[in-house]
Amino acid sequence: MGNSVEKTQFDKFFKAKSVAVIGASSKPGKIGYEVLRNLACFEYKGKVFPVNPARNEILGLKCYPSVLDIPEKIDLAVLVIPAEHTPKAVEECGKKGIKNIVIISGGFKELGEHGKELEGKTAEIARKYGIRIIGPNCIGVFDSKTRLDTFFQSRERMIRPSPGPIAFLTQSGTYGCAFLEWAAESGIGISKFVSYGNRIDVDEADLLRYLAADEDTKVIAIYLEGLGNGKKFIEAAKEVVKKKPVIVLKGGRTKEGAKAAQSHTGWLGGEERIYRGAFKQAGIIWADTFEELFDMAKALAMQPPAQGSGVAMVSNGAGPMVQAVDACIEKGLKIAKLSQETISKLKEKLPPFYIVNNPVDVTGSANSKDYKIVLEAFLEDTNVHILMPFFVFQDTPLDEGIIDVMKELNEKSNKPIVVGAAGGPYTRKMSKILEKIGIPVYPIPERAVAAAHALYGYGKIKEKTAEQN
Amino acid sequence: MGNSVEKTQFDKFFKAKSVAVIGASSKPGKIGYEVLRNLACFEYKGKVFPVNPARNEILGLKCYPSVLDIPEKIDLAVLVIPAEHTPKAVEECGKKGIKNIVIISGGFKELGEHGKELEGKTAEIARKYGIRIIGPNCIGVFDSKTRLDTFFQSRERMIRPSPGPIAFLTQSGTYGCAFLEWAAESGIGISKFVSYGNRIDVDEADLLRYLAADEDTKVIAIYLEGLGNGKKFIEAAKEVVKKKPVIVLKGGRTKEGAKAAQSHTGWLGGEERIYRGAFKQAGIIWADTFEELFDMAKALAMQPPAQGSGVAMVSNGAGPMVQAVDACIEKGLKIAKLSQETISKLKEKLPPFYIVNNPVDVTGSANSKDYKIVLEAFLEDTNVHILMPFFVFQDTPLDEGIIDVMKELNEKSNKPIVVGAAGGPYTRKMSKILEKIGIPVYPIPERAVAAAHALYGYGKIKEKTAEQN
Repeated sequence: MGNSVEKTQFDKFFKAKSVAVIGASSKPGKIGYEVLRNLACFEYKGKVFPVNPARNEILGLKCYPSVLDIPEKIDLAVLVIPAEHTPKAVEECGKKGIKNIVIISGGFKELGEHGKELEGKTAEIARKYGIRIIGPNCIGVFDSKTRLDTFFQSRERMIRPSPGPIAFLTQSGTYGCAFLEWAAESGIGISKFVSYGNRIDVDEADLLRYLAADEDTKVIAIYLEGLGNGKKFIEAAKEVVKKKPVIVLKGGRTKEGAKAAQSHTGWLGGEERIYRGAFKQAGIIWADTFEELFDMAKALAMQPPAQGSGVAMVSNGAGPMVQAVDACIEKGLKIAKLSQETISKLKEKLPPFYIVNNPVDVTGSANSKDYKIVLEAFLEDTNVHILMPFFVFQDTPLDEGIIDVMKELNEKSNKPIVVGAAGGPYTRKMSKILEKIGIPVYPIPERAVAAAHALYGYGKIKEKTAEQN
Repeated sequence: MGNSVEKTQFDKFFKAKSVAVIGASSKPGKIGYEVLRNLACFEYKGKVFPVNPARNEILGLKCYPSVLDIPEKIDLAVLVIPAEHTPKAVEECGKKGIKNIVIISGGFKELGEHGKELEGKTAEIARKYGIRIIGPNCIGVFDSKTRLDTFFQSRERMIRPSPGPIAFLTQSGTYGCAFLEWAAESGIGISKFVSYGNRIDVDEADLLRYLAADEDTKVIAIYLEGLGNGKKFIEAAKEVVKKKPVIVLKGGRTKEGAKAAQSHTGWLGGEERIYRGAFKQAGIIWADTFEELFDMAKALAMQPPAQGSGVAMVSNGAGPMVQAVDACIEKGLKIAKLSQETISKLKEKLPPFYIVNNPVDVTGSANSKDYKIVLEAFLEDTNVHILMPFFVFQDTPLDEGIIDVMKELNEKSNKPIVVGAAGGPYTRKMSKILEKIGIPVYPIPERAVAAAHALYGYGKIKEKTAEQN
């Protein structure tokens, strides 16, 4: 976002000091009620104005027949009214001098020709007044610092994340809800969030450029079904990936999936091959599933990119490493060939029944000191670019000193570390502590490997863009 | 297991009334201590005898220099001693009349030639005395009813599942721990569990036949790295799948992965293609990841097999359905073409802005009644074989009456139901209630589709075996 006027305008979506909810309802469970309640009754500190000609007051707030009746300046309008009434409401916002609108309501292009016309009309009015619109058919925006959100999901049903390094852009509100809650529960948090649905104005390219300049955002994750302006997106991505990683999950890969996407947000998905090729060229990291999108974002937010594809593994329970080796090979990562020095060092320092190789099998008898020996040897071995320890935290010989070992390792390591561990409450407790330190943990080897692959992928992208500059 | 003598002997692994722990230790954290503690201090009601010549008493139990010194009959011996001492200990068990041994200790074939010799010697002695051995290099057995387990994982670190319909056989103890805890936390539970590691005697085929006759087991899940006697396994599987589904996750698919498997449990993985072909012919369901193995087992334990490949979807948030459609097509499931009658019925009964098609998009405004209308129409439509509703439980318009709707539907449905839902605490709460009713829930569409595919796969297997009979 080279234009600072534009940046100031986009900022209003996240830092608005006053919000009008057009279509506010007094009935709990209604979308117009929930949006108002989320803004008015929780951490958001700005002013909130319900708009509904049939009500005098909702949730203790004075209710206005139209935005034009509100006696104060409004930074952001949230529309939760039938599609049919949207153009008129946008016109009124324009007259009121509102420059930012989020349209939550559906009933537009996804329903066919008439809806498409309504979208066109709405966009035209917005352009006339210099208004920027997010939506329609979406859940809108969330800022983790101002705590402004336009969601109709109650706090009882959907928890909000704390501030964190990941921004998420999504065409699907459903994936938005899941991502926000996963980010909240894992503790990694979110910087900014936008669900943009049918995207009649503000698009991924605009948001990408905005987030590239956003100091709170370290990684950008995107779910999209189809691009409106593919060229604009690719151009933006090419610039943005020089500064921070961009990961995309693309819905509608098959013909049938693309058809489903079309009736969802009205955008035609394209051939997977074309998207994959274009994204790769632009330096965008490709995620295969929603879980992978989240997993990769977590890894890129926590760990440095990898300087090469050599993975070294160690575990006190070798089973998952077998799968991890399979997954590395299938993804194009290498099982690092440990140097002779590393091998000798490990054989000298470890008990004779540990299996020294890559993967290193320290068996169920391993304690934290054994892991320390192996991981420090990996760190010094120039053939190793990614450290991938697996932990069977259930195995009692593994003492909790492992946390200090990992903390120290993570502080001094310039190689990324990705951990695998699966289990119940104790394993989850240990995994949470590791993630708090900044080391991502995954329950199955394939997910750890996908995360490692993203770190390798971004390392290559950084290298390429450094050469170009 | 045609042989009832053999069945009686195998029963002892799970229902032993007296257990000797050979190599019991008095030092917390040591494997020999943890195994003893788990047997002696928790729900298992049988008699427990520690064996260690250097101790008089451990955990308040009299300690014996050798099994031969124990004055009572012993049903099962658990060995937690160095590999080197194993043949002698097995010999003593033979003299004592013990017919069942679990060898937890490693240090055998996975370490090379000498370990291999020790295995041979051990197996030979066992044969002489008619002893059956599980292991070595494993975590052994668990019975959810007698609460007998031979694990060295403390309860503080690894929770045990309640009785349930799934049996799990695994070459990897690590995957064993994870499966047990996932089964415990999800509430589905376990019937019987065997981690058999290097498998010098009792193998998957023996256990398959035993579990086929086990009334508590409805589904058999297996993790294996390589087969000792492939033909024996395939023959057994062919028989067993007529009675209950068998799902296998195979580690060591790539050349490198097979190498890792070999140094893990000493078994050479084979070419994936050969395994896949043989398993398919035998009617075994193939899982791609450990998560999928668990997901499929859950679906097959909870739901009937599908009578065809036609999937019908409905959601109040369409995003994940786009991916689900992609995944169905990629897996070979069909997006059912709804009958004209279904379409008309739905159009008549649902609001005009819902999108009636397959998938059905009931939008964020949907309540439980809307879902009921759609799901009952799916149930009546003969083109539909699998019902796949997705829920955005976060969306406030969706009332909790949905639980009753699903319960009623599940009771009258002869078509399998598989649910997708992702989120935080509230979504998890709702998902747990659904699973208690017997409807499996998955966080991402690909996992729901894999589960549906397993139900379709087992439907085909049942059909094929019915034709043969």
